[in-house]
Amino acid sequence: MAPPPFLYYARDTVFDFRLDPQAKLPVFRQIVDQMHFAIATGALGPGQRVTSLRTLSARHGVAINTLVKAFKVLEQRGLVRAVARSGYRVVGAGAPDSGRRRQGTTSRYAARGVSATKKEVHGAIATLDPGLYPGAFCKITEDYLTGDPDLCSVIHADGSGTKSLLAYLHYRETGDPAVFRGIAQDSLVMNLDDLLCVGVTDRILVSTTINRNAKRIGAEVLQELILGTEAYLARLREHGVGIYSGGGETADVGDLTRTAVVDSCCCATLPKSDVIDGSGIRPGLVIVGLASSGQAHYEDRENSGIGSNGLTSARHDLLSSHYRKRYPETFDPGIDPALIYTGPYRLSDALPGSRQSVGEALLSPTRSYAPVIRALLTAERRLVKGLVHCSGGGQTKCLRFGRTVHFVKDSLLPIPPIFKAIQRASKTSWKEMYQVYNMGHRMEVYCTARDARRVIEAARDFGIMARVIGRTERASGGKNHLTVCHGSKRLTYDAP
Amino acid sequence: MAPPPFLYYARDTVFDFRLDPQAKLPVFRQIVDQMHFAIATGALGPGQRVTSLRTLSARHGVAINTLVKAFKVLEQRGLVRAVARSGYRVVGAGAPDSGRRRQGTTSRYAARGVSATKKEVHGAIATLDPGLYPGAFCKITEDYLTGDPDLCSVIHADGSGTKSLLAYLHYRETGDPAVFRGIAQDSLVMNLDDLLCVGVTDRILVSTTINRNAKRIGAEVLQELILGTEAYLARLREHGVGIYSGGGETADVGDLTRTAVVDSCCCATLPKSDVIDGSGIRPGLVIVGLASSGQAHYEDRENSGIGSNGLTSARHDLLSSHYRKRYPETFDPGIDPALIYTGPYRLSDALPGSRQSVGEALLSPTRSYAPVIRALLTAERRLVKGLVHCSGGGQTKCLRFGRTVHFVKDSLLPIPPIFKAIQRASKTSWKEMYQVYNMGHRMEVYCTARDARRVIEAARDFGIMARVIGRTERASGGKNHLTVCHGSKRLTYDAP
Repeated sequence: MAPPPFLYYARDTVFDFRLDPQAKLPVFRQIVDQMHFAIATGALGPGQRVTSLRTLSARHGVAINTLVKAFKVLEQRGLVRAVARSGYRVVGAGAPDSGRRRQGTTSRYAARGVSATKKEVHGAIATLDPGLYPGAFCKITEDYLTGDPDLCSVIHADGSGTKSLLAYLHYRETGDPAVFRGIAQDSLVMNLDDLLCVGVTDRILVSTTINRNAKRIGAEVLQELILGTEAYLARLREHGVGIYSGGGETADVGDLTRTAVVDSCCCATLPKSDVIDGSGIRPGLVIVGLASSGQAHYEDRENSGIGSNGLTSARHDLLSSHYRKRYPETFDPGIDPALIYTGPYRLSDALPGSRQSVGEALLSPTRSYAPVIRALLTAERRLVKGLVHCSGGGQTKCLRFGRTVHFVKDSLLPIPPIFKAIQRASKTSWKEMYQVYNMGHRMEVYCTARDARRVIEAARDFGIMARVIGRTERASGGKNHLTVCHGSKRLTYDAP
Repeated sequence: MAPPPFLYYARDTVFDFRLDPQAKLPVFRQIVDQMHFAIATGALGPGQRVTSLRTLSARHGVAINTLVKAFKVLEQRGLVRAVARSGYRVVGAGAPDSGRRRQGTTSRYAARGVSATKKEVHGAIATLDPGLYPGAFCKITEDYLTGDPDLCSVIHADGSGTKSLLAYLHYRETGDPAVFRGIAQDSLVMNLDDLLCVGVTDRILVSTTINRNAKRIGAEVLQELILGTEAYLARLREHGVGIYSGGGETADVGDLTRTAVVDSCCCATLPKSDVIDGSGIRPGLVIVGLASSGQAHYEDRENSGIGSNGLTSARHDLLSSHYRKRYPETFDPGIDPALIYTGPYRLSDALPGSRQSVGEALLSPTRSYAPVIRALLTAERRLVKGLVHCSGGGQTKCLRFGRTVHFVKDSLLPIPPIFKAIQRASKTSWKEMYQVYNMGHRMEVYCTARDARRVIEAARDFGIMARVIGRTERASGGKNHLTVCHGSKRLTYDAP
């Protein structure tokens, strides 16, 4: 019988291998990989003694020469050191420091019980392991799934948030459950486009969770959510993005939700050498913005650019009291009624400056930039210095990445009609608008001025407008800083 | 520059490799693995022509002999066949059939908007890919993460469901947020113990998602949920279960939830040869039940056995109208008030027949059986014919596994006091009780009568009561069937 396939780490004691002579990987590589992984993940701590090579040789039937060769490689990597007459000991690895920083709070958003800044959350997680690349867009860990020290893993969760309520309103008013297919897409893209920012465009496994109130969200809606997920994944695969469904979960939790919460979780592994880390975002680069609106070649219809962030505010600021009276299940009764459905529109009303209705624009499914980023990384990986998905935090999201960077956004794409309508209806300050919404582009590629043309062409190949929307300079004062030019006004934002 | 690390499948055209001479795996194995994986996942379909070996040799600089050797292996595996003067063509793989079947509905449960049977959900997913092992407890896919055809992947999502509302009530009444640590555990274990049933006890990556109403669930609760997750994962690792946090997501969605929804998602890879499939559950075995109550050596205090299933009913059936008046945010206002908090107890009342209070018993965190199952699978993998986590569906969960099996449960463990109290308060029929709750054991190990002693000892090594609670016979009528002996009564259940 083959030995058990996975490592076993005895606690507080010497390390042992699980070597399989029948495995694809040569035994020498198995030893190197298992030791390297155990040290990288802390299963073997600094100073810990390694079982003598003589003992290992006898126990596993491995030639002593193979072990010597393997430990030489580990020594070269700085993972172990030979101690006279005492065999090998583990050398410690430096603790990574946290490079994550976020942005200040906003009032109207907070009054509705939504924190754009997640300050509280960051307090709770401040003590946690920030992963291998603390400055990266997503948390990245050693590849616990396979134990290969050359690979790393990402598991990432997100969802469609309160955008599902817009689908619910549309469904209730029209009877058409197919609108929930867009929500399935929103949930997936909110995940996938975060993953793009660390360099993942392939080998992605996804699971979707639907928490529903079964009295309001029936089988026909579930079906659209489930089949919509499958259909959107198939479409992404058609465009070269390797993303696959591993299943999903549906829970009936009517005491927890009045309608439906649609979340998804993506898992991927990638070579460490392919990771895109926030550290590439430095002064002296240009920022290419990829439009959130228009119609990409891989989209069926025009996209309003709305995405899935800020939808609590957008819904209440644009939609009228008609919905407050008819659908009390779509808002928190604990919120000041003066903030509930305070806008001028019904879903079917025309959106000014657009061919879309207000409902179409609000429900426009979040565009994934995966086909573009995949093409770019396949052809020109080295020119991409950084990627920022302008999700929560909108145009200020970039403040979390790089160090001592002054982001200057002085040539933004035109503001799509949906954001203009939200601002007009809510009188939200422009400064806050840029903190909540993407305002025209939801993906930023950081590269040298010389390479910008190639990024822009890659986007245009897919029918997506792109241009240099700004640049990075050195910030004075030691912190990241952002200037957004809105018409003749300069809006400024500091990293906290 | 090394070639891009991942495969690219051109659509409707010949297959191409991404070979890396610098990689750890020999080029010959890379070819075999990439072809095998592409065929297994359908990227290469039946009848499709493979680029000629001559062309591949020239394009990739691989010796023709290496290619010949690789394609011989693929031919032996039945994946390709040589066609005279036309090179190789792909042979189709048989479509897997669905072995999943579930159980009938119950009235009181349904009236509260909870479907124990998920019939609707199953309708929606009937058309979907059931994965590699349709009879297994979880959906299992090809290992999309690494592309190794000898491995497979599981991504699995679940959560604490409405049990978070009990924590909320306790928190509001006592001010103690630490009660939410148990909810973190509930969410993890509902995932992990499903994974155990397919043979996963190691190399697990997990992500937790908290959807909250920020007005009611503040930073101190988030902190307990996040730190509670980390602490419980560390405890599992101390007992040899390799499970690691890859991060999490917190969303403020007050318009969607009145309180908090705590979900998690686990991802793991394992060798296909290690998968435990439902097909091992056949007539002629015994069923060893592992107690859900008592105190395992790895638990800090007594466990009531409640788990995380049936908590909507348990909460309303046991708790008194005190909670209806004070905490309207903890139930769906659309439900008949005659079904809301209809019980005799407050959380602090003593639970009859127990040293615990009603609150302690209801909030008792779901026990994981991972340390036991890990020890069992490490030492005696071959004796385990099947594993069933008695989660949704309670004691009838087994009906979903195996074919033409009559499950006879005639020697069940004593019913823990919490379930007796629920039945007494609600007058729920005993037949329904066994369909909703685990009633005493939440994990079943299927093995031969001769091996039962070793399973029982493995459980007892961890302080968990276990015994042969029943057996499997051949069912007449072609469908699975279950008989539960409750005192002198025989309760019978048919697979739908």
